Amino acid sequence: MHIQTNGERLWSSIMDLATIGATERGGLCRLEFSDENRRARDRFVGWCKEAGCSVKVDQFGNIFARRLGRDVKAPVVMAGSHLDTQPTGGRFDGIYGVLAGLEAIRTLNDANIQTDSAIEIVVWTNEEGCLFKPMLGSAVFLGMVPLEDALNMREKDGMSVRDGLARMGYLGEMAINSYPVKAYFEAHIEQGPVLERNGKVVGVVTGAQAQRWYRIMVTGQEAHAGPTPMESRRDALTGASRMILEFERIGREAAGRATIGQMFVHPNSPNVIPGRVEFSGDLRHPDEEQLQRMDAEMRSVCNEIAHAAGLAIDIAQTTHIAAVAFNRSLVDVVEAATMHEGCPYQRLYSGAGHDAVNIARYMPTTMIFIPCENGISHNEAENARPEDCRAGCNVLARSLVQVAAHEFMPS
Amino acid sequence: MHIQTNGERLWSSIMDLATIGATERGGLCRLEFSDENRRARDRFVGWCKEAGCSVKVDQFGNIFARRLGRDVKAPVVMAGSHLDTQPTGGRFDGIYGVLAGLEAIRTLNDANIQTDSAIEIVVWTNEEGCLFKPMLGSAVFLGMVPLEDALNMREKDGMSVRDGLARMGYLGEMAINSYPVKAYFEAHIEQGPVLERNGKVVGVVTGAQAQRWYRIMVTGQEAHAGPTPMESRRDALTGASRMILEFERIGREAAGRATIGQMFVHPNSPNVIPGRVEFSGDLRHPDEEQLQRMDAEMRSVCNEIAHAAGLAIDIAQTTHIAAVAFNRSLVDVVEAATMHEGCPYQRLYSGAGHDAVNIARYMPTTMIFIPCENGISHNEAENARPEDCRAGCNVLARSLVQVAAHEFMPS
Repeated sequence: MHIQTNGERLWSSIMDLATIGATERGGLCRLEFSDENRRARDRFVGWCKEAGCSVKVDQFGNIFARRLGRDVKAPVVMAGSHLDTQPTGGRFDGIYGVLAGLEAIRTLNDANIQTDSAIEIVVWTNEEGCLFKPMLGSAVFLGMVPLEDALNMREKDGMSVRDGLARMGYLGEMAINSYPVKAYFEAHIEQGPVLERNGKVVGVVTGAQAQRWYRIMVTGQEAHAGPTPMESRRDALTGASRMILEFERIGREAAGRATIGQMFVHPNSPNVIPGRVEFSGDLRHPDEEQLQRMDAEMRSVCNEIAHAAGLAIDIAQTTHIAAVAFNRSLVDVVEAATMHEGCPYQRLYSGAGHDAVNIARYMPTTMIFIPCENGISHNEAENARPEDCRAGCNVLARSLVQVAAHEFMPS
Repeated sequence: MHIQTNGERLWSSIMDLATIGATERGGLCRLEFSDENRRARDRFVGWCKEAGCSVKVDQFGNIFARRLGRDVKAPVVMAGSHLDTQPTGGRFDGIYGVLAGLEAIRTLNDANIQTDSAIEIVVWTNEEGCLFKPMLGSAVFLGMVPLEDALNMREKDGMSVRDGLARMGYLGEMAINSYPVKAYFEAHIEQGPVLERNGKVVGVVTGAQAQRWYRIMVTGQEAHAGPTPMESRRDALTGASRMILEFERIGREAAGRATIGQMFVHPNSPNVIPGRVEFSGDLRHPDEEQLQRMDAEMRSVCNEIAHAAGLAIDIAQTTHIAAVAFNRSLVDVVEAATMHEGCPYQRLYSGAGHDAVNIARYMPTTMIFIPCENGISHNEAENARPEDCRAGCNVLARSLVQVAAHEFMPS
């Protein structure tokens, strides 16, 4: 069987959806609960119905568009992602996975291919988490966050998630996670530079990195920049700078990732020696033990730096996300589909969080990556090539069909 | 002649003035143009009148309280500083210099000492520059900023300096700088740790450091912290951290001062590799040529770091203040008075800016420092010891009398 999706149709759907919430710089601003996101959801639902799907919305606004299979009792095979974006987001992050799923269904329709299991395209609510915490829709679906707690979350202006869903007309009635799921696939742009740099078209994603996030506070002594000799200073910023470079070294040596993305300097006045610096730390590694070693080394070296410079330091770990290994049989299916497609590919792990990373802890899951230009995402300049979108979609469609067959049982 | 000022009276005046605009943490909030600063000015003027001084206010609100000398035609000898504070300022910065001058006059009154030249205590308008630029009163006095320009400056809420002075009742009528000045003295807390650390009671101040201020912009590539391998990053913050440590090294090796006090990270999100970092740089050295070398080395090394890391860099020098040497004969007078006082002292230069540093470019000037606790100022915790306040005041009083004599001619 050879499944060839319609790359032009997929691309034109992506471009069509990119007109809703389009920004001047070619990106998207489509926050969850906004009118723009309602319109994007509505258009997607319309397309699904045109493709013969029955569409249901659960009590948390997650959309499930089902193409029936031969066996109505068989657990469904899902593919999906999200339609919401960052305030200055791009046209592909999330959207690609949803529309690749839709294109797979359209292709199955065109080719009159029946599957044993139903195939469902899912749109998860509030993946980006600009107003509320990210990946909330899948977290509620999985029972990680109780439905009522999530519906009652309120943002600064007082709007609750419940209000937001009701306003969009997506406070659905279907019970949360009420039928068995055989497998979940999520196609996505890589959001990193690896595939592009290596000249690959598809990334077979084997899992996600473990992550530890920190809040680090370095306290020295505020003092006037002019009269205070260098040797009398307890400068929180030079101390923090040393720590930042150690983070970088540790990330590099472990072939993991280490990032300081956020930093606040107090009092942040040009002629006052900083008395306090607060910064975020983010260490990631696909191997939990290696991450543990990075953590220990980071703590030891930051404490040494603080001690040597007469600074106080407080390292608080704010988040620990365990490494996730995607389902091996699904990874193999994707790899086989990629080889069938005949495009350059590689195995890699996901550096970013995705609904799929949550879902993988509960049901057989994997992801399919395609390259994005310069590895850039969460940015209006986010871009992907039509031929890569099509290749990833072919791999997704073929994988869905394989996994939807009775013969296939995820290991 | 032995002049012994009244340390208790000085201290109680300082403590009395510290009740106006007192903060809960024992500091002062007495911004120029505030009601609190008006009350402090009024109380000071009242004390001066009680001490027999004639008080005049110039067209920029600078206050001149004159104790007449024998020779009304002789150029006056001035001592002063300022009464305004930072929003979370201390009880001594500026105030000490004004009240030490007043205590000197009270002491001369008590001892019935007449001087040839008149002695004037000056309060400079808007030294701290929380709303407008700092040291504005002395700058207008010296013609560095035209009177009308300064009066017409407006802060964010639309209040002009003219409005502010009028509101306080200190938009005076006396012409700016309309009579000759023989010398200007400014007693001040050191605002640094040197005297305290060295066990000295008085600092004989020989001049002020040259300063260069910079605005440095480092631009890399914003990217997602998770999926972006260390070797693909162009991280503006790790680049900036390397530069900050080079600043520190350069300051240390040159026995100068190098400070990064202000820093802004963009987009400042925990899981985004910073694409842009903007920071202030501040290099100081008492020797202009050495500062020039520090500047050249800083530029060269920052450019190298940027180049090696694939970052763009823009180094803009925002301020250059030349080094100032205080008047040698006045410095000698202060040193002799300090030796007469018999307290431990040292020569040092001023690390901070003061009205005296401006004034020294136009007329014979010097400063007298006393220690402050832990070198801390611009801080509610700012503190000084009564005995040090008295010692500095004795030195000031003796110096004023010496310089006010006809026989003394500044070199």
